[in-house]
Amino acid sequence: MTPSVVDLSEKLTRISKHWTPGMVAELNGQHVKLVKLLGNFVWHSHEHEDEMFLVLDGTLRMEFRDRAVNVKKGQFIVVPRGVEHRPVSERECAIMLFEPASIVNTGTAGGKRTVAQPEWL
Amino acid sequence: MTPSVVDLSEKLTRISKHWTPGMVAELNGQHVKLVKLLGNFVWHSHEHEDEMFLVLDGTLRMEFRDRAVNVKKGQFIVVPRGVEHRPVSERECAIMLFEPASIVNTGTAGGKRTVAQPEWL
Repeated sequence: MTPSVVDLSEKLTRISKHWTPGMVAELNGQHVKLVKLLGNFVWHSHEHEDEMFLVLDGTLRMEFRDRAVNVKKGQFIVVPRGVEHRPVSERECAIMLFEPASIVNTGTAGGKRTVAQPEWL
Repeated sequence: MTPSVVDLSEKLTRISKHWTPGMVAELNGQHVKLVKLLGNFVWHSHEHEDEMFLVLDGTLRMEFRDRAVNVKKGQFIVVPRGVEHRPVSERECAIMLFEPASIVNTGTAGGKRTVAQPEWL
């Protein structure tokens, strides 16, 4: 079977809920997910997983305990395991995540925004 | 130390040679690389690694033994381990690769285009 082509813009139209990651690929034990952000997420960290955020649209503000950085469309940031962070977006922002299949979006913080098993878009 | 923001367009300006991947991130045993394509690569496959190609600019034509697909800007394709493929691009095309650190660009085919240890951009 020939692998299929995935269109990021088309997949983004399928996302209606903020902070709920949707799967677009799985490879080498890693997940590739899309998510739309609006407002403030919870402070959290991941014990065993590094996490890459690639901004597809808008601007992501990634807060760390000591400072914050803006990540714009066409830019990415890698948050290493163990580093506390809080994604924030004043206006809607769309990102692609690269991270291990084992990850949970809220890390060790838990709470109502936890999505243990993301669905495929 | 706060993680730094990486700008894909800026990194692409540092690539002068086609078919030579440059590193932009490493996480969870995976590499994220940028590469510019022009012309035909070699037919090859990877025994143990799935490979994700996200097109940042231009159009990638991914040939398989039974057919070929066009992957345009903003689209990606995952080539599973063991599947023979040949990346082709009539005009220059820029892509981002997401794949295990263990991968060699020419897979089991080898040859003069082999880059065993990509450099950081």
